[in-house]
Amino acid sequence: MSPAPRPHRAAAILSVGDEFTLGQKLDTNAQWLSRRLTDLGVRVREHVTVGDDEDEHVRTLTRLASSADLLISTGGLGPTLDDLTRSALARATHDDLIEDADALAELRRWYASRRRVMPEVNRVQALRPRRASMLANPAGTAPGLRALVGAADVFCLPGPPREMMPMFESFVVPALRADPDRLVLTRVISAVGLGESAVVERLGELMRRDRNPLVGTTASGGVVACRVRYEGPPGPGAHRDLDDILARVRTALGPAIFSEGDESLASSVIQGAIARRLTITCAESCTGGGLGHALTAVAGSSAAFLGGFITYSNDLKQALLGVPPDILLDHGAVSAPCARAMAEGARIRTGADLAVAITGIAGPGGGSDRKPVGTVFVSVTLSGTHGAACRADTRRFLFAGDRASVRQWAVLTALAMLRRAVENLPDAPLVGEVPDDSPEAGP
Amino acid sequence: MSPAPRPHRAAAILSVGDEFTLGQKLDTNAQWLSRRLTDLGVRVREHVTVGDDEDEHVRTLTRLASSADLLISTGGLGPTLDDLTRSALARATHDDLIEDADALAELRRWYASRRRVMPEVNRVQALRPRRASMLANPAGTAPGLRALVGAADVFCLPGPPREMMPMFESFVVPALRADPDRLVLTRVISAVGLGESAVVERLGELMRRDRNPLVGTTASGGVVACRVRYEGPPGPGAHRDLDDILARVRTALGPAIFSEGDESLASSVIQGAIARRLTITCAESCTGGGLGHALTAVAGSSAAFLGGFITYSNDLKQALLGVPPDILLDHGAVSAPCARAMAEGARIRTGADLAVAITGIAGPGGGSDRKPVGTVFVSVTLSGTHGAACRADTRRFLFAGDRASVRQWAVLTALAMLRRAVENLPDAPLVGEVPDDSPEAGP
Repeated sequence: MSPAPRPHRAAAILSVGDEFTLGQKLDTNAQWLSRRLTDLGVRVREHVTVGDDEDEHVRTLTRLASSADLLISTGGLGPTLDDLTRSALARATHDDLIEDADALAELRRWYASRRRVMPEVNRVQALRPRRASMLANPAGTAPGLRALVGAADVFCLPGPPREMMPMFESFVVPALRADPDRLVLTRVISAVGLGESAVVERLGELMRRDRNPLVGTTASGGVVACRVRYEGPPGPGAHRDLDDILARVRTALGPAIFSEGDESLASSVIQGAIARRLTITCAESCTGGGLGHALTAVAGSSAAFLGGFITYSNDLKQALLGVPPDILLDHGAVSAPCARAMAEGARIRTGADLAVAITGIAGPGGGSDRKPVGTVFVSVTLSGTHGAACRADTRRFLFAGDRASVRQWAVLTALAMLRRAVENLPDAPLVGEVPDDSPEAGP
Repeated sequence: MSPAPRPHRAAAILSVGDEFTLGQKLDTNAQWLSRRLTDLGVRVREHVTVGDDEDEHVRTLTRLASSADLLISTGGLGPTLDDLTRSALARATHDDLIEDADALAELRRWYASRRRVMPEVNRVQALRPRRASMLANPAGTAPGLRALVGAADVFCLPGPPREMMPMFESFVVPALRADPDRLVLTRVISAVGLGESAVVERLGELMRRDRNPLVGTTASGGVVACRVRYEGPPGPGAHRDLDDILARVRTALGPAIFSEGDESLASSVIQGAIARRLTITCAESCTGGGLGHALTAVAGSSAAFLGGFITYSNDLKQALLGVPPDILLDHGAVSAPCARAMAEGARIRTGADLAVAITGIAGPGGGSDRKPVGTVFVSVTLSGTHGAACRADTRRFLFAGDRASVRQWAVLTALAMLRRAVENLPDAPLVGEVPDDSPEAGP
């Protein structure tokens, strides 16, 4: 072996398979591996996906290994004729493929324990380049491989996430060699209600590209995630610099921040409600259950979320929520009075402390000049003493995009308004909010 | 310009952004683009993802352009300092960045139409390399770019899928130059209720890798998509061969097929209900609104879907749906009798023809030996004469995976059972179905 193996500073990730280049399957391994490696202090420079083509596979392996310290490849280890990782690795290392007796025995045992005989096609999974080592796969038949390609440490893992993930933890993590001179620290602060441009304006020169820690933003469906990344010498200064920038980001974004880390907005709302012993109900029209679905995605949400109503038709708005027919006649289903009546109907019928209602025009049809597609009303009502509403917050929005986009923004905005009510936050406009200039707009 | 531009035989796809290399976000653009390009007859050789690093971006652009006829890049066109696609493209083409007056005017108009003033940071989105052309973005602020990098036709599109996809259709598709000697035809047949292994067994030797047309399968959350792809000389023989294989796939999979093309299962259910003038309601517990959300994702669903109930707590199962307390006491909320009572409660209260109820244990907590995590009951009831139920189909399932997976399978399965009732299909077991061996299991 070469002397003093170098630290794993930079990594590349390779996903192998026609199912990806033909667009038949969505690759989730690259994201998962990137997140794990980043958390472990390794910088991921590149993801590459190639199909079941041995020449391209060899070329790519060789290229990536020439500029990365660590390469994680997934896929191509199955028993079929398209599974080319073993031979591609052998070619990239100018090595022969040999049959590994232990691996073959393990394969036969795997099938025997399931009362089956190993199909002969699976025998190829016991092959490896002579100089490579085999990595046991407790969850499947394909062993992984580890080899040096040039100076790069290459791990070839199976494609199926359930097999790949435990093998990454068992084999790659213990083998990682941190760079003693370099520390990477990453934090994420997520905000809702501000557009990405507004966030960027508030962060200002914090986002200069020559800073360390470096601050970047990603916007997705109404949530803006600010990533802060320190990359430099380890030591107390590193954490101090990071904390300093984090504090400045918090100051800049204020109450729009709902999470530091991976917590979703829905989770933040549920945890806040649980902490304050508040119960929640919902009444949805155009979102059709999307808000309830988002709230119940949170494990333990039953401690705060009671349930709700999907009143897609006007009949059901009346029959299930008691929305007065006058409101539907005079103002229509997509109006502030209707949203408020829906929320109150849900709140009273369920006994919840907080109710949120959504009614709008998701499109593509149903719009008009006065209420174009994307018009959505959201109302949050809060119980006061003796069960009467003590507070109602009803707003009008105009969301861009197609049906799915309008519905996504509506759910997100309802969560943001719910959070505001739960946390009793100061008022502030939300992205997409527009004045309700319709004749029926009331207090 | 160079003479007689060459056909777009081979393409590469580039996704840009730290959010990908840091593993914060899942890239769905590469898959979508691969599928579209494959369907349009272009071979996708490679996907690459790089972070917000201008040098790596330029290197990758240059490398990919040197070996592909067509390059589609997404991301990096936002208004922030880490959005580097404009400058990377300029460097890769040894060109300057200039401000496009039309693009700037369009940007200002976009904000004005939303009664906002364009933030100054967005001005950079009007920049382009001098020799590049701008591609209008009707759904967002970032125009796309088109340029020749070497001999490769490069399209830089925005990252958000809802902006990228229509621009791909408007700008890339009309510009594609097919290879006159090669025809690629792709069809998709989607089935529900069969596991991927069952589909593979039924298709048998149709899936041999040396066939043309080639048949491949992808399984995702309960739906198995069979892709049939012809790749060879154009002409009547091509379509004949394709139709022959399609007919054989249809025979093999039978009534499990719900779609030939892109139609979702929910859409198939809604269209079927509309055609048969049937109305639908839902009563959801563990899925929290996910079923209603899926049904209402279909434009025009209001013609069939009336709305429903999210009865997350046992109190609401009683209060909103009239589930008898005895059932909850004797059998529990996760039981066949409860599922049936929920469905009937919804059906009677809404007057719908069909009701579907879901109750289960999504996890991670709440499981027991007799009812482990993943246990879900789904009940579909159908109105008969005089409003009484004439048919009830109640089944028990055990779904694998985490909370999100159990909920996804539950929604999918409920849609499959709903489809069966709407289309009056012959009975057949569904994936995940298990005998209800609990003492309370009744007819």
